[in-house]
Amino acid sequence: MRLQLKIAYDGTRFGGWQIQPNAVTIQQEIEAALHTVAKTPIRLHGSGRTDAGVHALGQVAHFDSPDTVNMNPFNWVPALNSKLPPEIRIIECSEQSPDFHARFCARSKTYSYRLCLSPILPPFLAHRAWHLPRQLNPDDLREALAQFQGTHDFRAFAANRGNEDESTDYHRTITKADLSVLNDGYLLQFTGNGFLYKMVRLLTGAAVQVAQGYLRHDDLSDLIDNPGQKKSPLCAPPDGLSLVEVNY
Amino acid sequence: MRLQLKIAYDGTRFGGWQIQPNAVTIQQEIEAALHTVAKTPIRLHGSGRTDAGVHALGQVAHFDSPDTVNMNPFNWVPALNSKLPPEIRIIECSEQSPDFHARFCARSKTYSYRLCLSPILPPFLAHRAWHLPRQLNPDDLREALAQFQGTHDFRAFAANRGNEDESTDYHRTITKADLSVLNDGYLLQFTGNGFLYKMVRLLTGAAVQVAQGYLRHDDLSDLIDNPGQKKSPLCAPPDGLSLVEVNY
Repeated sequence: MRLQLKIAYDGTRFGGWQIQPNAVTIQQEIEAALHTVAKTPIRLHGSGRTDAGVHALGQVAHFDSPDTVNMNPFNWVPALNSKLPPEIRIIECSEQSPDFHARFCARSKTYSYRLCLSPILPPFLAHRAWHLPRQLNPDDLREALAQFQGTHDFRAFAANRGNEDESTDYHRTITKADLSVLNDGYLLQFTGNGFLYKMVRLLTGAAVQVAQGYLRHDDLSDLIDNPGQKKSPLCAPPDGLSLVEVNY
Repeated sequence: MRLQLKIAYDGTRFGGWQIQPNAVTIQQEIEAALHTVAKTPIRLHGSGRTDAGVHALGQVAHFDSPDTVNMNPFNWVPALNSKLPPEIRIIECSEQSPDFHARFCARSKTYSYRLCLSPILPPFLAHRAWHLPRQLNPDDLREALAQFQGTHDFRAFAANRGNEDESTDYHRTITKADLSVLNDGYLLQFTGNGFLYKMVRLLTGAAVQVAQGYLRHDDLSDLIDNPGQKKSPLCAPPDGLSLVEVNY
């Protein structure tokens, strides 16, 4: 039976989603919990990676429950949560058709990025926001975000993974890039049909540079519409980033 | 020059306020930062201890700045914060008269205790709330809190420190014990002229037991007004507790 998990996590002390040597990862923790519950190794397929220190409110993943486990999807939630650290919580478990795939069936994703402008970053926001004690111009921030909307060649906002070549397609469509006002800063929101490696952090870094007066709107337009070999200069730290939702 | 610090911290990964062997504590971290800034050892005096895992929004402490340090009180804030981990923040620094003492001059303290009733504790509340997925009766909770108000012999709500004797005075005055409603639970608030060891956690545990139907209001009254050798049976975990404010 193919099952879909919706997962929330505080990524602070993890080395990101994907299993790798020398770091404890979210995927590794959940696969260990699946192994314990099912008494057999189970591979978990996420909708995509999140980097070290990045959080999630609604990451999605799927796995195939072996026939030897006769358990209602609903009951996987407490069974897994009882094996997981409190920083990782399974929020939902539901049955899907056998051809459902958490990564390949995803139609869009929504990320949020939290900026804190307080002179002093409160301890409860440590590792959960980008601390920017200098003033930002909110109109410039909003305008920069609006510039990202639409379908563009986002190669200037993609970190290299090392496997890029001539055929790599950097076009993505951002359907929403805006902000809401918090009492101590802003919450940026990005929805798109796909995001390149570190793209949300590079978009956020560029928008902040515009709002701080370090980058002109014209230069931002140039990076979006005529990137060439140029790269956007500032990558926001992972702390403020959360994967909010994956849409199918 | 006697200086007063107002301090916020996320106590999750610390062994409480007070310096002790085999644990990293808040006092130790701030004294180390003071030592680095002042280039000489400085003793920091807190308004009182907080236990391992307990948080603070407004802990208060004082120290004497040596004559060799010629620094405006205002400038201690960034100087110390640059040496401290992000889970500990100095919020304010102000000059006090030489006879000010953070502990002996405190007139009252306010604590909050966060209860989360969601079926699943969100990761961002891990270590920051007491997870109570069973329903509570809010009227019973409110009524139990009201019973604590006033001056009582709170010996039933004091954990033993080992230094108690016949002369120990367990009378304390609670001027406020109530709750506000959050979207996923309740925030209890306690203000009093002093609190015994683990008293807020023991009061919270008893109020929750009343609200869950495990303890009758009459039995709670008995613990408050006629304690004898009886002890309240449930101590709430440190996770949900924060020292909000110390009043002078």
